[in-house]
Amino acid sequence: MLTTINALKQPTRWEWVVQALANLDTILLDHSHCERKAAGVAINLMFRYPSNTKLVRMLTAIAREELEHFELVNQWLERRGIPLGPLPAPPYGATLNSEIRRDEPMRLLDTLLVCGLIEARSHERLGLLADACPDRELAQFYRGLMASEARHFGIYWILADTYFDRETVMQRLEELAIVESNVLATLHPQPRIHS
Amino acid sequence: MLTTINALKQPTRWEWVVQALANLDTILLDHSHCERKAAGVAINLMFRYPSNTKLVRMLTAIAREELEHFELVNQWLERRGIPLGPLPAPPYGATLNSEIRRDEPMRLLDTLLVCGLIEARSHERLGLLADACPDRELAQFYRGLMASEARHFGIYWILADTYFDRETVMQRLEELAIVESNVLATLHPQPRIHS
Repeated sequence: MLTTINALKQPTRWEWVVQALANLDTILLDHSHCERKAAGVAINLMFRYPSNTKLVRMLTAIAREELEHFELVNQWLERRGIPLGPLPAPPYGATLNSEIRRDEPMRLLDTLLVCGLIEARSHERLGLLADACPDRELAQFYRGLMASEARHFGIYWILADTYFDRETVMQRLEELAIVESNVLATLHPQPRIHS
Repeated sequence: MLTTINALKQPTRWEWVVQALANLDTILLDHSHCERKAAGVAINLMFRYPSNTKLVRMLTAIAREELEHFELVNQWLERRGIPLGPLPAPPYGATLNSEIRRDEPMRLLDTLLVCGLIEARSHERLGLLADACPDRELAQFYRGLMASEARHFGIYWILADTYFDRETVMQRLEELAIVESNVLATLHPQPRIHS
């Protein structure tokens, strides 16, 4: 668990929590998109590296879990009468993706670390929602998802550490973590999990 | 179950079974790719139609099940010492995809029906393998998957029938089913689930 927090350069600021709590319905809808996207990214990675047995096996587990969470979040949406629908993404994902180098093997390393950082941040933010959310049952739901997010960070880290040497991984993680925290330094005006 | 078979214009010919049984390892590897692709297609559809609640709910269930099967097929590969790896796809998928019209709402209709036909054909062919495979345990495994393939065909059909009128669906299914059977009329030289 501590590793997750340690990967992040800057903690989320309180203004994000205020924004999220004031817009819980939108946060729930965005969360649904996040889970589906996370499943899609894991499947795309398996598609891109079909010979990496360990990667395929571990990402299958992640994809299955993300879809399970997608289903759970959608049940919350239904319960609160929030219709499913599109939602413009915040700049967070695109900015991180633009850091992914195009040539292999760096492309694999960067992708794994970006995915890991997103999981780490989700873990931190769901934890903040679990602490601050006035709806106790929803708070409990967020707390229940936290462990998975931390585990997913761990899996992406293990995969990076499997295919690359430790020093290369640490150095690149450091660089990407700085970018990750910088994107979130300015609160995005639209409430999102990664605003 | 019968609906599944009825959707197909032509039954698979015996020469495919002969080819498949002579190349079971390749068929297993291709099957793994099919399950992963099927999960990816379901997730992409959810991404494309995020407001269609029924579609999102039903395709989440399909995607979860395809990933579970992907994992099971990969366990078979491991057990038989077949390394994971890429495999050139047969013309089947590309030919069917080229039939999908580009404009909505026809794009949705065609996509659902093409997905359904692929499931129907998989159901038929896994059944043939279940009957003919000399490895009893593997035969049993194929038989176990058949029910899901039939159910998935049913789901794609129900979705098409939800968003389009019955006559339009039947007419287009008829056209696409002819194309589907035509692609398979000539056995593709490389052994595949859809060769």
